[in-house]
Amino acid sequence: MNIVIVGLGNIGSYFYNYLKKNKKILFNKTNIIPNILYVSAKSISKKRSFKIPKKLWLKNCLLAPKIKEVDIIIELIGGAEGVAKKLVFESLKNKKHVVTANKALISKYGDQLAKIAEKNKVNLEFEAAVCGGIPIIRSIKEGLIANNISKIYGILNGTSNYILSSMDKDKLEYKDSLRNAQALGYAESNPTADLNGEDVASKLKILTALSFNSFINNKSILVEGIKNIDQADINNANQLGYKIKLVGVAESVRNKIIQRVHPALIKNNSYIAKINGVLNAVIVESNPVGQSVLQGEGAGSGPTTSSLISDLCSVLRGNIKFPFVISDKKRKSALFESVDSKKFSVYLRLDVKDKHGILSDITKVMAKNKVSIKRLIQKPTVNKKNASIIIVTHYAKNSSFVKVLTSLKTKKYIINTPKFIRIEKI
Amino acid sequence: MNIVIVGLGNIGSYFYNYLKKNKKILFNKTNIIPNILYVSAKSISKKRSFKIPKKLWLKNCLLAPKIKEVDIIIELIGGAEGVAKKLVFESLKNKKHVVTANKALISKYGDQLAKIAEKNKVNLEFEAAVCGGIPIIRSIKEGLIANNISKIYGILNGTSNYILSSMDKDKLEYKDSLRNAQALGYAESNPTADLNGEDVASKLKILTALSFNSFINNKSILVEGIKNIDQADINNANQLGYKIKLVGVAESVRNKIIQRVHPALIKNNSYIAKINGVLNAVIVESNPVGQSVLQGEGAGSGPTTSSLISDLCSVLRGNIKFPFVISDKKRKSALFESVDSKKFSVYLRLDVKDKHGILSDITKVMAKNKVSIKRLIQKPTVNKKNASIIIVTHYAKNSSFVKVLTSLKTKKYIINTPKFIRIEKI
Repeated sequence: MNIVIVGLGNIGSYFYNYLKKNKKILFNKTNIIPNILYVSAKSISKKRSFKIPKKLWLKNCLLAPKIKEVDIIIELIGGAEGVAKKLVFESLKNKKHVVTANKALISKYGDQLAKIAEKNKVNLEFEAAVCGGIPIIRSIKEGLIANNISKIYGILNGTSNYILSSMDKDKLEYKDSLRNAQALGYAESNPTADLNGEDVASKLKILTALSFNSFINNKSILVEGIKNIDQADINNANQLGYKIKLVGVAESVRNKIIQRVHPALIKNNSYIAKINGVLNAVIVESNPVGQSVLQGEGAGSGPTTSSLISDLCSVLRGNIKFPFVISDKKRKSALFESVDSKKFSVYLRLDVKDKHGILSDITKVMAKNKVSIKRLIQKPTVNKKNASIIIVTHYAKNSSFVKVLTSLKTKKYIINTPKFIRIEKI
Repeated sequence: MNIVIVGLGNIGSYFYNYLKKNKKILFNKTNIIPNILYVSAKSISKKRSFKIPKKLWLKNCLLAPKIKEVDIIIELIGGAEGVAKKLVFESLKNKKHVVTANKALISKYGDQLAKIAEKNKVNLEFEAAVCGGIPIIRSIKEGLIANNISKIYGILNGTSNYILSSMDKDKLEYKDSLRNAQALGYAESNPTADLNGEDVASKLKILTALSFNSFINNKSILVEGIKNIDQADINNANQLGYKIKLVGVAESVRNKIIQRVHPALIKNNSYIAKINGVLNAVIVESNPVGQSVLQGEGAGSGPTTSSLISDLCSVLRGNIKFPFVISDKKRKSALFESVDSKKFSVYLRLDVKDKHGILSDITKVMAKNKVSIKRLIQKPTVNKKNASIIIVTHYAKNSSFVKVLTSLKTKKYIINTPKFIRIEKI
């Protein structure tokens, strides 16, 4: 089968070289030779550490879908719009199989793309878009196909997990930890999407659709990142017996699905709390199999290529599947619910002026909004002029906490934006 | 497609009811209706909690392969010989797809069966034979297909893991823990294969063949069970910072494969040490993806059915694969090596008469066989007449330890069979 590789960044380059080197092994495993017909990239003239024969170069990648001999297009450009979007839509419309690592594109246009793929009986594969080398999509679509999934969650972003782990282990402040991550290649020069929860949100939306046989829901999702977490929070969490992790959670509660991405305090002896560095882990709770855990490298050229090749082999073997487990016609417009009425126990940190009567005022605000306190610790700050009040609450509705925070923010004795981190029993 | 279910024990019954109830859902996922054409079991008249229509009963299951309308045979009888063997061989010979949970059969006759399946272009699927609900076989064959696997290991038996965990947690002796496991349904009335390592060995041999593209090797494998481990060992391990686990390990060392099943001391803060109860976990080390971990329920009707259905759907979708990743013709007679020359650091426990000169004699035996001591603890036994000598050694060849043990066993001051448990850095 004839393949066109579009995009030659880190992943594209690794993939091209892997495929060239392992053609025979893949033939042994699939009985089909994956032949690289063309390669396309923005900059042909760019200096590369490997040579690509001239005859392989396709100047305009958007011609690829029109070429009769082309069977499979590997899209490694990235981004939800522009050339990547055009290429993938055109490819599927022209009955070419598509393998992509583009989570932004799939989480935005996955439903439309799946419909075209299904109509034209071609594959749309995107294992590499979620958690690098972890075969989570294949596991949901095939390994766990018998199961009714009630919850899927985990650590879905290596960059933010690296930063939180190193803030904890090396006692670093957020900024220093981020700088280290960038120096080590674990964070991009513009790491916004990794740190504000967007990257996790894209992955979670895809996993939600796959797990609950629903369409992708871009509206009903809570997304919070890790930017406001500082060393004091990490330290407080440790004292309380927790680690702070950025989690993505999708769960079905009374037939309504809640999607949420936010930092969470997790008991330090739990499995998730021990996933450190750039590792990713996904946990699926389903019936009849129970709890399944998949852990592995969540990013990088090698792991991503592992997933791309897995998808490619699935296409080579002729294993045509519905891109989102079931047919477009059978997918549900499942009911989604915001996080408002979900109950949490939370960690609050209020940095306040150390004056008389403040504690009484804070507890009054909380009581008024039906939030009750489970544990309270007051600590003087280093200069002893101010104090940090750390509160662990009993369970209360998310919306109640929003009211508490809105109210507290107006108080003159509050000197920094209050910290609010949900406690997650996972 | 028409299905015959053969065997109606716990798993067969669960599978039958699951399939009846979820026919439509599976149709939505595969576009094919899985129709139960016949059901067969040793005892038709046995009282069951569910009813099977008379017209579904097939008295002699060995007729199934000859029936033209039959497409898929689900073998849930068990055992490497007898009816199960006959049924599976005949089914494949008659071009019927086979889905089985029979690890004894696959680990013994898998190579021959795969050859027939491949020749006749039908599926031979056995996800349910290894680690219940964990999709490890699908992950090796599909999700991790791009990877060159160098090591695969883990906790592959829930019964023995439950017993070891409960000996540790509840401070029970082996016999009491086994009795509890039987009462809870975690151990069979005849648990021999689970406890002597045989069950793990069957699974490991299958995983080895899949991971290293080799034929199944029944000769070169070390198999030791957990029967000799007692509370004192568990306690000593804890004092040294370890947990005792029954592990299965297959690894390629200088292009030779070593297969081994044995109890091991594992650092108590490692991932594997924390897999408790009936859970299973498999860890795959491969390139380019790095380390992948899969964890889940290793046994039981629900998890096993999850795997059976996953295999069934793969057949329904027409996803014909080589049973052992690559074609029979391309599989290697890989070089296997015994554990003799592999080096380990080990834990030794010698119960001795508390007399002068014994320690000097023991150390002499060890030095003669090139085993050196890293740590030695001598403890009086409860009655204070005897002593327990606990030794942690430096790395030495497995064969050296065999010599040390052979020599020590002849000594009159040794009052119990010396305990010997390898320390594993995983």
